[in-house]
Amino acid sequence: MKKSTSNRAADSQGRADSAAARLLAQVPQVVTAGVDILADAVAAQGTAPERVDWRPPVTESRAALDVIAAHPEVSEQNRRVIERMRAVRPMLVDIAVAGDVIPALRDGVLCHAGPPIAWEACSGPMRGAIMGALIYEGMADSPSAAEALAASGSVTLSPCHHHRAVGPMAGVISKSMPVAVVRDAAGDGVAYTTLNEGLGKVLRYGAFGDEVIDRLRWMERVLGPVLKAALSQRGPFDLQALIAQALQMGDEGHNRNRAGTSLFLRAIGPQLIEGPSGAQGAAANAASVSDRAQVFRFIDGNDHFVLNLVMAACKLVSAAGEGIAGSSVVTTMARNGTEFGIRLAGTGERWFTAPAAVARGLFLANYSEADANPDIGDSAITETMGLGGFAMATAPAVVGFVGGTAAWAMQRTREMYEIALAENAAYQVPILEFRGTPLGIDAALVLRTGIQPQINTGIAGRVAGTGMVGAGLVEAPMACFSAAVAALARTLEPQLAAEL
Amino acid sequence: MKKSTSNRAADSQGRADSAAARLLAQVPQVVTAGVDILADAVAAQGTAPERVDWRPPVTESRAALDVIAAHPEVSEQNRRVIERMRAVRPMLVDIAVAGDVIPALRDGVLCHAGPPIAWEACSGPMRGAIMGALIYEGMADSPSAAEALAASGSVTLSPCHHHRAVGPMAGVISKSMPVAVVRDAAGDGVAYTTLNEGLGKVLRYGAFGDEVIDRLRWMERVLGPVLKAALSQRGPFDLQALIAQALQMGDEGHNRNRAGTSLFLRAIGPQLIEGPSGAQGAAANAASVSDRAQVFRFIDGNDHFVLNLVMAACKLVSAAGEGIAGSSVVTTMARNGTEFGIRLAGTGERWFTAPAAVARGLFLANYSEADANPDIGDSAITETMGLGGFAMATAPAVVGFVGGTAAWAMQRTREMYEIALAENAAYQVPILEFRGTPLGIDAALVLRTGIQPQINTGIAGRVAGTGMVGAGLVEAPMACFSAAVAALARTLEPQLAAEL
Repeated sequence: MKKSTSNRAADSQGRADSAAARLLAQVPQVVTAGVDILADAVAAQGTAPERVDWRPPVTESRAALDVIAAHPEVSEQNRRVIERMRAVRPMLVDIAVAGDVIPALRDGVLCHAGPPIAWEACSGPMRGAIMGALIYEGMADSPSAAEALAASGSVTLSPCHHHRAVGPMAGVISKSMPVAVVRDAAGDGVAYTTLNEGLGKVLRYGAFGDEVIDRLRWMERVLGPVLKAALSQRGPFDLQALIAQALQMGDEGHNRNRAGTSLFLRAIGPQLIEGPSGAQGAAANAASVSDRAQVFRFIDGNDHFVLNLVMAACKLVSAAGEGIAGSSVVTTMARNGTEFGIRLAGTGERWFTAPAAVARGLFLANYSEADANPDIGDSAITETMGLGGFAMATAPAVVGFVGGTAAWAMQRTREMYEIALAENAAYQVPILEFRGTPLGIDAALVLRTGIQPQINTGIAGRVAGTGMVGAGLVEAPMACFSAAVAALARTLEPQLAAEL
Repeated sequence: MKKSTSNRAADSQGRADSAAARLLAQVPQVVTAGVDILADAVAAQGTAPERVDWRPPVTESRAALDVIAAHPEVSEQNRRVIERMRAVRPMLVDIAVAGDVIPALRDGVLCHAGPPIAWEACSGPMRGAIMGALIYEGMADSPSAAEALAASGSVTLSPCHHHRAVGPMAGVISKSMPVAVVRDAAGDGVAYTTLNEGLGKVLRYGAFGDEVIDRLRWMERVLGPVLKAALSQRGPFDLQALIAQALQMGDEGHNRNRAGTSLFLRAIGPQLIEGPSGAQGAAANAASVSDRAQVFRFIDGNDHFVLNLVMAACKLVSAAGEGIAGSSVVTTMARNGTEFGIRLAGTGERWFTAPAAVARGLFLANYSEADANPDIGDSAITETMGLGGFAMATAPAVVGFVGGTAAWAMQRTREMYEIALAENAAYQVPILEFRGTPLGIDAALVLRTGIQPQINTGIAGRVAGTGMVGAGLVEAPMACFSAAVAALARTLEPQLAAEL
């Protein structure tokens, strides 16, 4: 029953009229996207707009993005990276002395978090941690002597990431420190990390007082050897299984690790009760009971203890994706307290950096944002592998530590899927019906969507020696991604280099 | 600029026309409530209705509900119940021998889960657990002898709830079993519960084979004494703090207790490492190392270990509300495997029962719903106090054990708030922006809303001796609530008794 043309036109006009009437009769419902000024203007007129967090693609990257989009091997290489990452089975196998497993760590050499940096460019907490490490190693007998030594140029600073290692916050590793050794049960990769000191006045937050140095010496003398013995009795400890379970127990693996730490204590508890076995063990046993109880209490007193182990597991997984030509997958996000740096699978060991931002957050006691150092630490390796800020949906309680709301945490995780190429079936988020965590941040997708990787983080005091002042939320700077994507495009089309 | 009356009428007519046109032009969106037949009919016509889970108030209870609504002291007394419940601070203070703290538990007496029941009415798993307990206590030397003894009438069965005690599933307690003693740090209440045996072939699921009896003897000889010593060295253990933390770690306290069990192991770990202290302790220490390691491994091997402790904590809280005249708050929900029973604060020790339903669920190995016994156990004390099925929003991973989806779990928790009078600020649900768990089920609200309390539960095999066959979901039967509300109304208006 076809209507005549004129009837249809009249109908159409009538509909337009009533639509217009309805629009004027109702309270307007406005959806805004892009810059806040538009939403703010609507809000000022008495209507709450539905703000959509959308930003246009970074325009200076358009040419580079076009180059990448035109190369079908990019997606093929990205798939290879994801496959390699998925194959890794990180196992905690040993506790070693840093200098024994990281050859570069001789006297006068320190590893640190983030991209390369010179002493002169170091922020307060990085300086504080370097000074503390020099005192701990006996290379300086006071903070001022340590500062002078570091400033003299005779201390070599080298990123942890250049030595298969990661360290939270300042991430300083010196040769005598005990480190966890994480190996790939399905390959030959290895990763190292320090043992977590706890919160407050600790080296990694830039504190260097006596309590800090004493604790580091106890960790070297007692914590490391006791854990080494327990692990050797127990056998390798499956960190993938630990993380998988912890994510079902409200951890996101970065700033909430209470479940993971609990599971780690469950795993080593029997060995800490039994003590060393064998002939020499029996003799040593009685003497070491108090050490073992002290180790249990130390870990029980620090719900962040397994953060470092989770980081090493993530480092091992990310390293499996390194050096795949043409891939736009992010293999590293790390901060040295001054700069934020990223690396891509397809651009090798090159860092792409931008100034580190200051996190918005929740501050301890009398501290405020004015006391906060810019973002610092290798711990963003957790976000690089889809945990931490990417997995907050599974850990709503973390917002009590880093800020935000549960609904916001859920929303952020949903958004992070938009910049990831895959999902990690090994790490599931029950509240999202057991969806895998985001896996494989695509630098090109970050630029195309304008969605910056979400990171949650501890906040160090900006003055050396202060320690922790809070915890909060920060995003990876877009400039790192535009520089990285431009460099990747140059590897694909060298003749276009001049334009990019 | 007022329009004339005729204009407004024309406008109004025009709007009605266009509204009708719109209605017919669009795919209809239908919201259905009440019986499924309506929604099914809509669905059959190709439109997916939005089903609202609403049921009309239970009509036979209307007169009783009117009596309760007309009595202002009911809400006042309900407030008193909530206040008293909120004041309780449950602490695990000791492990004792059941017969030493529950005077009724002499030879030939057994406590059991749920409302009172005679041997003849007992289901398979309840019979199996009774038989196992008689063998364990040395009163019978074979299952057939135990069965004959129980059938002879010389064994006295008494509900745990009549002795300040609770037991999961069959909930059988005999005089030699070790029990946890939970005391109120803010009052003089006490509650008892057995220690959890693990899953599979265990007494509480109705199994009575040698492995079951051997385990019970080990629990009496080793587990109880070792935990008693650890607690005595450590001091009272705060169960409210344990539950509060566990709820932020994906436990709901009934069928998911991995976090709580982890936190319990963290709490007693140092004492298990150090062993007994003092003069006699030093001598005993070496000999008991293997016992202590065995205890740690036993608990580590059973993520449900703290269920019983959570149940005792809930029993202590609920008992604080008992005996407040006029209150419609539910103080007990419990099942004996044949009947589901509830008690109200305002109706004293009287039980209101209905046939227990069979849970829908996930079944182990070769089992199916045909093997399932009706709902059994005192563990619904967790739901009575707003945990378990009421708190599944905070424990989405539990749906992998009991069935359902994360979205459904969230929805059920939201619905449970509709039948609860208050929220428990001590127990927060992070994903609901730290809203307190539902506290104080109001039997009148259950009838008015038609929303039955949600319970999640282990499922016992219906044949004695089978053990666990699965886990699932079940609702408290409405008939318990209509009977209880009628009885409460009679206490308020005795002259109306005939009508109700």
